[in-house]
Amino acid sequence: MFYYSMKRRLIGKPLKSTQLSEQRLNKTKALAILSSDALSSVAYGPEQILIILMTVGMAAFWYSLPIAVGVVILLAIIILSYRQIIYAYPHGGGAYMVSKENLGMNPGLVAGGSLFIDYILTVAVSVSAGTDAITSAIPALYDYRVYLAVGLVFLLTVLNLRGLNESASILAYPVYLFILAILMMIGAGVYHIAAGDVSPAAHSPMGTPVTGITLFLLLRAFASGSSALTGVEAISNAIPNFKQPEPVNAAKTLSYMGIILAILFCGIVFISYYYGVAPTMKETVVSQVGAEIFGRGGFYYFIQGTTALILVLAANTGYSAFPLLAVNLTNDQFLPRMFRMRGDRLGYSNGIIFLGVTASLLIIAFQVHTEHLIPLYAVGVFIPFTLAQAGMMRKWMRGKPEGWRAKLMINTAGAIICFVVMLMFFLTKFSQVWPVLIFLPIVIWVFHQIRKHYIAVGEQLKITKETEALAPDGNVIIVPVSGITRVVDNSLQYARSLSPDRLIAVYVAFEKEDIKTFEKKWAAWQPDVKLVTLYSPYRSIIQPLSKFINIVEKKAREANFQVTVIFPQFIPKKGWHNFLHNQSSLMIRANLLYRKNLIITIVPYHLIK
Amino acid sequence: MFYYSMKRRLIGKPLKSTQLSEQRLNKTKALAILSSDALSSVAYGPEQILIILMTVGMAAFWYSLPIAVGVVILLAIIILSYRQIIYAYPHGGGAYMVSKENLGMNPGLVAGGSLFIDYILTVAVSVSAGTDAITSAIPALYDYRVYLAVGLVFLLTVLNLRGLNESASILAYPVYLFILAILMMIGAGVYHIAAGDVSPAAHSPMGTPVTGITLFLLLRAFASGSSALTGVEAISNAIPNFKQPEPVNAAKTLSYMGIILAILFCGIVFISYYYGVAPTMKETVVSQVGAEIFGRGGFYYFIQGTTALILVLAANTGYSAFPLLAVNLTNDQFLPRMFRMRGDRLGYSNGIIFLGVTASLLIIAFQVHTEHLIPLYAVGVFIPFTLAQAGMMRKWMRGKPEGWRAKLMINTAGAIICFVVMLMFFLTKFSQVWPVLIFLPIVIWVFHQIRKHYIAVGEQLKITKETEALAPDGNVIIVPVSGITRVVDNSLQYARSLSPDRLIAVYVAFEKEDIKTFEKKWAAWQPDVKLVTLYSPYRSIIQPLSKFINIVEKKAREANFQVTVIFPQFIPKKGWHNFLHNQSSLMIRANLLYRKNLIITIVPYHLIK
Repeated sequence: MFYYSMKRRLIGKPLKSTQLSEQRLNKTKALAILSSDALSSVAYGPEQILIILMTVGMAAFWYSLPIAVGVVILLAIIILSYRQIIYAYPHGGGAYMVSKENLGMNPGLVAGGSLFIDYILTVAVSVSAGTDAITSAIPALYDYRVYLAVGLVFLLTVLNLRGLNESASILAYPVYLFILAILMMIGAGVYHIAAGDVSPAAHSPMGTPVTGITLFLLLRAFASGSSALTGVEAISNAIPNFKQPEPVNAAKTLSYMGIILAILFCGIVFISYYYGVAPTMKETVVSQVGAEIFGRGGFYYFIQGTTALILVLAANTGYSAFPLLAVNLTNDQFLPRMFRMRGDRLGYSNGIIFLGVTASLLIIAFQVHTEHLIPLYAVGVFIPFTLAQAGMMRKWMRGKPEGWRAKLMINTAGAIICFVVMLMFFLTKFSQVWPVLIFLPIVIWVFHQIRKHYIAVGEQLKITKETEALAPDGNVIIVPVSGITRVVDNSLQYARSLSPDRLIAVYVAFEKEDIKTFEKKWAAWQPDVKLVTLYSPYRSIIQPLSKFINIVEKKAREANFQVTVIFPQFIPKKGWHNFLHNQSSLMIRANLLYRKNLIITIVPYHLIK
Repeated sequence: MFYYSMKRRLIGKPLKSTQLSEQRLNKTKALAILSSDALSSVAYGPEQILIILMTVGMAAFWYSLPIAVGVVILLAIIILSYRQIIYAYPHGGGAYMVSKENLGMNPGLVAGGSLFIDYILTVAVSVSAGTDAITSAIPALYDYRVYLAVGLVFLLTVLNLRGLNESASILAYPVYLFILAILMMIGAGVYHIAAGDVSPAAHSPMGTPVTGITLFLLLRAFASGSSALTGVEAISNAIPNFKQPEPVNAAKTLSYMGIILAILFCGIVFISYYYGVAPTMKETVVSQVGAEIFGRGGFYYFIQGTTALILVLAANTGYSAFPLLAVNLTNDQFLPRMFRMRGDRLGYSNGIIFLGVTASLLIIAFQVHTEHLIPLYAVGVFIPFTLAQAGMMRKWMRGKPEGWRAKLMINTAGAIICFVVMLMFFLTKFSQVWPVLIFLPIVIWVFHQIRKHYIAVGEQLKITKETEALAPDGNVIIVPVSGITRVVDNSLQYARSLSPDRLIAVYVAFEKEDIKTFEKKWAAWQPDVKLVTLYSPYRSIIQPLSKFINIVEKKAREANFQVTVIFPQFIPKKGWHNFLHNQSSLMIRANLLYRKNLIITIVPYHLIK
């Protein structure tokens, strides 16, 4: 009872299956909860570019502008490509579906497996980053950071279990506030620059020659900046969460997200360049820019606060996209069926809980220091990006629909760039990225094992003419008895009412003297029920009983008789009373159930006090 | 399998019930394991006297001699009295049996409950004291003291699970070495004193008048010294562990223990007095005396080592006596029946494990600082002492056998002294002793609740003419089905073979469209089995199913029909496969079992791959 009332308080009343459409998201809410991951990356993406460029000197910072243009071009290609994916696969599934349908099962699983791992990493990394932001502000909380982080995951899990619509209503505010804050910062910065308030001496002019700059370095800076594109794929996985017409709304939301992301990203890159801000260990680029423009006043703290919030909320994108990815994998039998069951509030609650639990375990294992996981998480996105683009290329080449050449060009460009970015991660951050080469194959192997099992079970359960079950020719009933009581009486009456061909009572005695006494008593009480007494010198009940049942079952099988074991069981009135009675029948039952051809029946006898 | 092989390694091969007599103890072994608690108290008893006397000055130390004489007289009375108890109650039970038979149920439970708590405290306190001795010698282990102490309890538990005889063989050596060490110390001390090597100026002569000495103070010192008598009662509880003739051997062993205890106790008191040793915070009296006599060489360390060992082994007395006390309480239905079951090695393994677990919990709760429990533990012994003596008084007065006057005198003196000692504990150490006034009533209340339950169950299970079970007039069988599979086919064939009066298949649908489809398929497959489909808008299986079963059962009851629910269950080949299947049938079964008049049958279908 306690469990149910707690559940009701946490996640609310259950909803009817027919209320599903009420849970769908409009574009405003969908943009908020599905783009938080992508948008949050503008808080660290520009900085990543500058960190790489700084290795050859601040004079090279002007390269951040063409690199930002490159990132935006890549973003445009990916967005265009995913719009095509959304229309081509309107039931969702994103990279997994595209790769599976066009490239084959295993490429599909590589894409799906990458995203499967990636969403777990998203939650762990985002919540850890948010926790870091909180403990930097309130150092006294540092010792409790694991509790804090796991508490945040718990909060997000509960919020998502309450249903998509409700969580979106709550989480939309901080996302739009963050967009507003950054836009105002960019606007104010551009105004100051236009008004000539900023000295042009703060930055090296465009085109300044820099010694030591190489193509490799520029590619590295580009790849690092591209980490801002993580989370762009989420919408394509979550199409079924949109209001009808789903693909149209999803595609529009994706475009809005791309535009906002491009503006925020370019704006921050441009202003940091113009203000001559350099990344330091102690302060983020966004924080420095904010302080330069507004001073460290109220508005500065507004920017910092919304940034910290969106870092935590980035996790929510995982919560929206992961359960749907899991459903797609489950539909193909690569995951346990429970991922397909809708919970009380119509969300795929098992996927939500699984995500919360695994992310919490990661946070605990890494004690909130999940920074090392960031490159892993970025590469885990570019693998499915590359595969999705390649899959779309194949699709256009096969089907050749109207205007396929232009579409093919977009996807080819996308595939090449995504592949290069992925390669850059492997080349430059191999020491942090290698685990993907171990875990991804393991995950895919597990997927295959699960599917193999389901197929084997399906075949074994299928009804065909040859496999129709034969009715047994007769029934043998065994009743283990522990004494002469009403519980036993009750069970024997039931056994008789089934009119079995043979009815045997079995008694296990620990003392030799006990056998004679019991046999006499029995003969007086139930003269028509055959009693078998077994002597157990080692005081075990299970061993002699299973041995005896073995013998009976073997004989019965020869005659095509079915053996049923009936357990008399009294049910105490109060739960704690169970401690007062040897629970051996429970263990015996568990033990017997795994034996062949044995049917177990429990005849309860309810105590009234 | 792993569990069984671990168990075999830890506790050895199971023994046949007929090998019980081989597990009995001879006097040498019994003395060792049953007296370790009592003997170990000579390591701190004399010191307790001196600590009290020191509050008025070292000049009062000569009072320790008459007090020691008083303690020995009390010891003699208790020993004589327990010898009489042993002969009067040769099947064991000690203070519990004596009080119960002669004073009534509740006094018996006060005695039994006190000892029940006391043996747990014995284990916790002794092992903690031993751990303290070890961590004083090796301070690096201090941080691991909880692990160390719990590890020692685990070791003692396993040793006792291996059987009485085997543990006694191992534990006898340290006990006899301790006796030897203290005897040699006393002998050498007396020799030095006789040879005139010790200056008589070291101590104040007998009879020196001391200001500030009061009767109350002397009684306090006497009570503190009497704490050396804890553990004396153990033999009377453990009579069934002796070789035949049990009472004779037990009585002899008790006398030997009394003599050894008296010699060691008086010897230490006398030598400490003569050498003028005063208790300090840093060093025990035994350690000081040993150093005075032998210097801090090899022999000194031998004394210290055996003393530390016997402090740990004192716990073993609890392991020997507790399970038998529990059996006596169980025979009177005050404890769960499991305490009466013999384990693989014929010991009462549940009692041994219970003792180990509760003592470990105490050690963990107090973080090995169990010193505060010592007075609690001492008072917990004098309550049953007093009751046992009073019980024997009653016995002699009632029965008046030959020589009853002398016996009555002994027990009356014992009762009065024990009562005074108990009172002294309450008066002088109330702040540490009060919990007994809370926990003892709780324990006794629980004893009564357990008994009440067993009596109620016994009455409900007893077969009488009026309560004979009525055979049902017919059978209704309900088979919940999840689809058209071989598992269901199999279950239906079995259900038919029982030729029930009604056979109903039930299907729970989550979608309205699903109902029609399934009904059509079913009609084609099993036209003769009635199918009921239930629509579950909240996607719960249990709720609509139990509602339906409720209705069927109510109708059936009116016609005196019995309802059986048959669950088709497929058993996967490998354990982990269970994760891949919704285990809803398990939950449904647990849910239904607690409902009235419902029989549960599981028809397993074993997958072969």
